[in-house]
Amino acid sequence: MADLDALRQELVTANRILAKENVLDSFGHISCRHPDNPNHFFMSRARAPEVLTEEDIMEFTLTGEVVGPTPAPGKPYSERFIHGAILEARPDVVSVIHNHSPSVIPFSVTGRKMRPIMHMCAPIGNDIPTWDIRTKFGDATNLLVTNMDMARDLAKTLGGRRVSLMRGHGSVIVGKSVREVVFNANYMEKNADMLIKALGMGEVEYLSDGEVATADKGRAGFTLERGWENWCNKVGRPYISQEWEMGPGFSKTDQ
Amino acid sequence: MADLDALRQELVTANRILAKENVLDSFGHISCRHPDNPNHFFMSRARAPEVLTEEDIMEFTLTGEVVGPTPAPGKPYSERFIHGAILEARPDVVSVIHNHSPSVIPFSVTGRKMRPIMHMCAPIGNDIPTWDIRTKFGDATNLLVTNMDMARDLAKTLGGRRVSLMRGHGSVIVGKSVREVVFNANYMEKNADMLIKALGMGEVEYLSDGEVATADKGRAGFTLERGWENWCNKVGRPYISQEWEMGPGFSKTDQ
Amino acid sequence: MADLDALRQELVTANRILAKENVLDSFGHISCRHPDNPNHFFMSRARAPEVLTEEDIMEFTLTGEVVGPTPAPGKPYSERFIHGAILEARPDVVSVIHNHSPSVIPFSVTGRKMRPIMHMCAPIGNDIPTWDIRTKFGDATNLLVTNMDMARDLAKTLGGRRVSLMRGHGSVIVGKSVREVVFNANYMEKNADMLIKALGMGEVEYLSDGEVATADKGRAGFTLERGWENWCNKVGRPYISQEWEMGPGFSKTDQ
Amino acid sequence: MADLDALRQELVTANRILAKENVLDSFGHISCRHPDNPNHFFMSRARAPEVLTEEDIMEFTLTGEVVGPTPAPGKPYSERFIHGAILEARPDVVSVIHNHSPSVIPFSVTGRKMRPIMHMCAPIGNDIPTWDIRTKFGDATNLLVTNMDMARDLAKTLGGRRVSLMRGHGSVIVGKSVREVVFNANYMEKNADMLIKALGMGEVEYLSDGEVATADKGRAGFTLERGWENWCNKVGRPYISQEWEMGPGFSKTDQ
Repeated sequence: MADLDALRQELVTANRILAKENVLDSFGHISCRHPDNPNHFFMSRARAPEVLTEEDIMEFTLTGEVVGPTPAPGKPYSERFIHGAILEARPDVVSVIHNHSPSVIPFSVTGRKMRPIMHMCAPIGNDIPTWDIRTKFGDATNLLVTNMDMARDLAKTLGGRRVSLMRGHGSVIVGKSVREVVFNANYMEKNADMLIKALGMGEVEYLSDGEVATADKGRAGFTLERGWENWCNKVGRPYISQEWEMGPGFSKTDQ
Repeated sequence: MADLDALRQELVTANRILAKENVLDSFGHISCRHPDNPNHFFMSRARAPEVLTEEDIMEFTLTGEVVGPTPAPGKPYSERFIHGAILEARPDVVSVIHNHSPSVIPFSVTGRKMRPIMHMCAPIGNDIPTWDIRTKFGDATNLLVTNMDMARDLAKTLGGRRVSLMRGHGSVIVGKSVREVVFNANYMEKNADMLIKALGMGEVEYLSDGEVATADKGRAGFTLERGWENWCNKVGRPYISQEWEMGPGFSKTDQ
Repeated sequence: MADLDALRQELVTANRILAKENVLDSFGHISCRHPDNPNHFFMSRARAPEVLTEEDIMEFTLTGEVVGPTPAPGKPYSERFIHGAILEARPDVVSVIHNHSPSVIPFSVTGRKMRPIMHMCAPIGNDIPTWDIRTKFGDATNLLVTNMDMARDLAKTLGGRRVSLMRGHGSVIVGKSVREVVFNANYMEKNADMLIKALGMGEVEYLSDGEVATADKGRAGFTLERGWENWCNKVGRPYISQEWEMGPGFSKTDQ
Repeated sequence: MADLDALRQELVTANRILAKENVLDSFGHISCRHPDNPNHFFMSRARAPEVLTEEDIMEFTLTGEVVGPTPAPGKPYSERFIHGAILEARPDVVSVIHNHSPSVIPFSVTGRKMRPIMHMCAPIGNDIPTWDIRTKFGDATNLLVTNMDMARDLAKTLGGRRVSLMRGHGSVIVGKSVREVVFNANYMEKNADMLIKALGMGEVEYLSDGEVATADKGRAGFTLERGWENWCNKVGRPYISQEWEMGPGFSKTDQ
């Protein structure tokens, strides 16, 4: 049986880190699949990443229904369906972030594609689609993904990738562990900022497909751990390495 | 009878948040209409948002005359008329911010229109005018709005909207509560920053009129509360939800 | 007799504020003319603005010779001549800042002129020259102003203005008091940042000459005080208003 | 015999400063040649700059083999070969930084050359090459420099210069002391940021070759010390001046 207290602690730490690194502000969220039950996931109640605590972590089914003790600690995020639909469509995914990462949003409303320009950012991939809620749900939504129908449509655009932008809204990013997805979300924001600057100077030489594939495949668990330890220190949270965190993406031994 | 101590506390918290979020610096101000007397409003004496306290909050008539105990805590803002004239022209408005929000100012001096590019920023609207003091008051003012004649002219440009830019100066933004207007001012600054970056990359896909209308209409009180709780934490002020704060825009029940 | 301890305290506070506001980093300096002897001025020994203290403030003649107790607290800035030559040429000036303000430097190496785009920045003026050390001293200097000959040439380019840029180096800015020049240096950095963003969006509508003149002439002492109180709070220095600080530019009574 | 405890302390301080100044994040590293054995160097184990301590400093041969007590404090950086190969090729170099300095990276993926636009940044030089791993190692690497063959190729591109960019990766920067290379890395990041802004405004007037040569040659040790004292204060580390730190670049006497 997985240590769910450790998982709740991990999610709170992840929220603090994402806020510190400017990926989340008062909004946006990160989820983690239940280690013992692939049809459930954990995520905070509707609260800002810097103030939520372990007590705010709730359990959901993949269709976004609240599971667990009554009363629940509070109202869930209205966009929890994003997480459910992606975890439903992607058995390989353990953790999902939905964010309004500020340097990424400009790419969601212009013709410019976001692509990695440095190796640390390679795992976001060379083929990042932009989901547009208008295509299926019309030109007068509030852009929020508030039911499974919308969320499954977004998951379809994401496909087998790690990232999809969302026009006029933000992005989703997925990974095999909380630490992996946090790492990639932090570096996607950095990549977007650097790419905007590079594009202002002329033609950009992106990483090649071969480089992206190699950089992604070869990334060891200790790379994620180096970032995680550093970010834990920045946000004043204890740095802990835990068995349950180790998804199929990396193992204790290759650290 | 409204709890005026709570209102003063709310205004001080709002000032701290607006300074933290880079909407105000040493200058700019936020007012709140008197809950029991629509012809009066509250605002700090002329002091920087990060240092003013509850004791600095003064009461004014809509024409900017000081009301209340003598001596007053200090000199009022010379631009208090902005607040009076807007509250006079707009019975629906409870709170007004005048600011020099740094990413917004470039839009006041170029032909580019500021429009929302993401849903959080939708409430600023798709039709933001720019008031130019020169049009009525000539080419040699100091750009300050220091009497009712100027302020009423600005209020006329604002019309029924939430925002008007002010050429070479800043902007005004209005709302149905302190928390609503603070929220929208914070996200207007973010929108401006993201839009400048997007415009540097080519054609921009703005939110449609239908999206703006839906996003604005559908925003629930708990959205404002999520931001407010987060910002209170950032500036070290207690997070309090108070009856008097709840304007016609949202009620306790839809939280 | 002026209170020289208060003046030393004022200079240290000014250094802390300029570092906090990103006008100075480890380099750059601010001076103040001796209140009782117009042929002398005060400035720190060669030390970074965030670490220098009252004990580091030294007295100089206008030609940069060290005056006062032996041994001096340390080595003087090698560019102290900038301050001497400007105070020599400009009896109306009380305080001088030389800085490498980062948003201003790009204007010193491009054809774009820096001009104010909002009222708070009006006092820098609509006619800012750029001094180029090459014109008189050749193409192989280290760009530092390390003698009176160079400094007087810079002062000549400055003329009767408040600001001169220095190509590939930074700028000088002068005022009638420490608080005035700090205020204008802080807002020149902000203006440069906003102007770069505005220029990226197209044609810019600058303040008119009439607006600049009126905004400058009409600025009251309490405007400077509002900023100063706020900045003192930010850097953890006491806020003090002192007689000797009040130059010809404003008096206690118009506060 | 050199004081190796002091050297370890210096390296930890350098790491903290480089993180604070945004040159390193969770990644990147700084090394220092062994003062008594030019064929060895010191560098931290694979750990983030803000959390590593004196106990993490390891000793290496120039081919990257671990020297010293067993067990080693931890796993070494996989890119330690960069440091070895440069120290091998450049007997004049004492300290090497490899970083992902964010404003510098855009120059590594566009045709724009990075060149100094202000005197503080002159020592990076007017001729900065970009090493492209693809040229010799193909289009499908993970861009990391993980063996001596790659590292020597990079060292060859660097040649006798102080800086080489690395396409899609970052840069290397070398110096005659820890303090010199930290100083230049900090100002290279600042120069890149200012240059991006200047390039957005039109043609840029770079420092001339003569100016670069003079600014570089004439820089005194106390200039480095002024920055170092300031940065030590920012990161809460003691400011210490030590004999072993004084390389051939400057001596105690010219302070």
